[in-house]
Amino acid sequence: MQTTYLLNGQPLVSSQSGANHFGDGLFETIAIRQGRPCLWQYHLDRLHQGCLRLGFPVIEVAQLTAEVQQLCHSRPRAVLKIILSTGDTQRGYQRAAGIAPNRFVQCHPWPDSPLYQTPSPSVSLQLCQTRLGCQPLLAGIKHLNRLEQILARKEIQPPAVEGVMLNQQGQVVEGTMSNVLLWRAGTYLTPPIVDCGIAGVVRQFVLDQAVQQNQTVHQEVVSLAMLRQADALFILNSLLGVRQVVAVGEHVYPSVAMPTFLQRIHQACFIPN
Amino acid sequence: MQTTYLLNGQPLVSSQSGANHFGDGLFETIAIRQGRPCLWQYHLDRLHQGCLRLGFPVIEVAQLTAEVQQLCHSRPRAVLKIILSTGDTQRGYQRAAGIAPNRFVQCHPWPDSPLYQTPSPSVSLQLCQTRLGCQPLLAGIKHLNRLEQILARKEIQPPAVEGVMLNQQGQVVEGTMSNVLLWRAGTYLTPPIVDCGIAGVVRQFVLDQAVQQNQTVHQEVVSLAMLRQADALFILNSLLGVRQVVAVGEHVYPSVAMPTFLQRIHQACFIPN
Repeated sequence: MQTTYLLNGQPLVSSQSGANHFGDGLFETIAIRQGRPCLWQYHLDRLHQGCLRLGFPVIEVAQLTAEVQQLCHSRPRAVLKIILSTGDTQRGYQRAAGIAPNRFVQCHPWPDSPLYQTPSPSVSLQLCQTRLGCQPLLAGIKHLNRLEQILARKEIQPPAVEGVMLNQQGQVVEGTMSNVLLWRAGTYLTPPIVDCGIAGVVRQFVLDQAVQQNQTVHQEVVSLAMLRQADALFILNSLLGVRQVVAVGEHVYPSVAMPTFLQRIHQACFIPN
Repeated sequence: MQTTYLLNGQPLVSSQSGANHFGDGLFETIAIRQGRPCLWQYHLDRLHQGCLRLGFPVIEVAQLTAEVQQLCHSRPRAVLKIILSTGDTQRGYQRAAGIAPNRFVQCHPWPDSPLYQTPSPSVSLQLCQTRLGCQPLLAGIKHLNRLEQILARKEIQPPAVEGVMLNQQGQVVEGTMSNVLLWRAGTYLTPPIVDCGIAGVVRQFVLDQAVQQNQTVHQEVVSLAMLRQADALFILNSLLGVRQVVAVGEHVYPSVAMPTFLQRIHQACFIPN
């Protein structure tokens, strides 16, 4: 007796139904400029951390880099997505022995939305009711269990383009697709990514550049009150770079210029490697 | 410019790469006997709850039932898997408008493992280090974000066939693929499924039957000490029915007969609807 399948009522001839995923995998979303990836080493580093955490084999960097070049070399501006996923497995949670996750490399057109064009518009956020669960084993890495983000994204209504997500204790963690960076009295604050959230590559780039450029960025628990009391608020994301936030819900931030440090970070986010 | 893909270095002609999942979906695993599903209404009820929680359209029961009959009618013993999943979507967390999730119905052979044969062997468990995160919005439903179970399943070594999972506070919640039921001083205990865990169909069947048969089942927080002090421990699962646990790690349970109430539940788990 074989396994038989119906997809939306139609027989499937292959066992590769593609549906038997448990979100057992990792992904990266990367800006492409002049045919080459931006912040490439940061994305590779996070993918590597994810492989260690999920028990995947170490990625073969030369092979992956060659595949990215093959797909992207003719694209002046594009979005690269890399997915490592165990994909269709046997029924049940046990991975097949000697697991080698499938490696998907996709090159998408750069988004048409005004949000992604230059000059960069400021953005409005809203507070999401969907909170992040506490799971230290999966915090930081960009894994494929993203139901929380999907539920949070459903909440967002224009003019907001992004949502602020809290943890179970009501502390600010991140956006649905970005990290947050507060500016207050000349120093920067960003929530620690320990129990939940994704350690974004732009966030890590900010932390590293701050050390080199004599700027102070504290990783510190951020309350909603602190978020509202900030002199300025920014979101960070590989495709958005650094974006200034004009409002979170009803709360409007004072109109201040983006600090030179962050302007430079934003530009550097789109320098191809 | 179109989206282009590589799968393990080979070009993909279709955009249906099947990899762009965020685990945005639900599943059910169902015992088939004499060509018909067991505990069918319980599985439908949980699927319905999941659809409400994830914002999916209500399932069309008649259609789904007909598909199950089409696939399973000639199978004396089989495993049915139903998956509702948004599958391949646009990049990003926003679902396409008017989302109609794909409906996969799969009929697998009954497992060969001795664990799934009659008479039912008792089972050994081990305590997993992987703990469940706290996420009330997703607790109870059988969604496709199952990295915690995959990490926990990796820990299990023979003779254990199942693992006990704790929550972040160190309280017992469930197995990796089953619910737990303790027997102590003539009453039953099972952990509440509020902040994490899956509300199993056999667990719900036990709760319902207890009311009808004048048995007491408390839904109560269970510590590790309580687990070890139980007179007997059982795991519950659609394919296993009710199984008596002989040991959790080093702790061996006294040899007692399975209560008649649970023997009858076990048999009723495999009566086709």
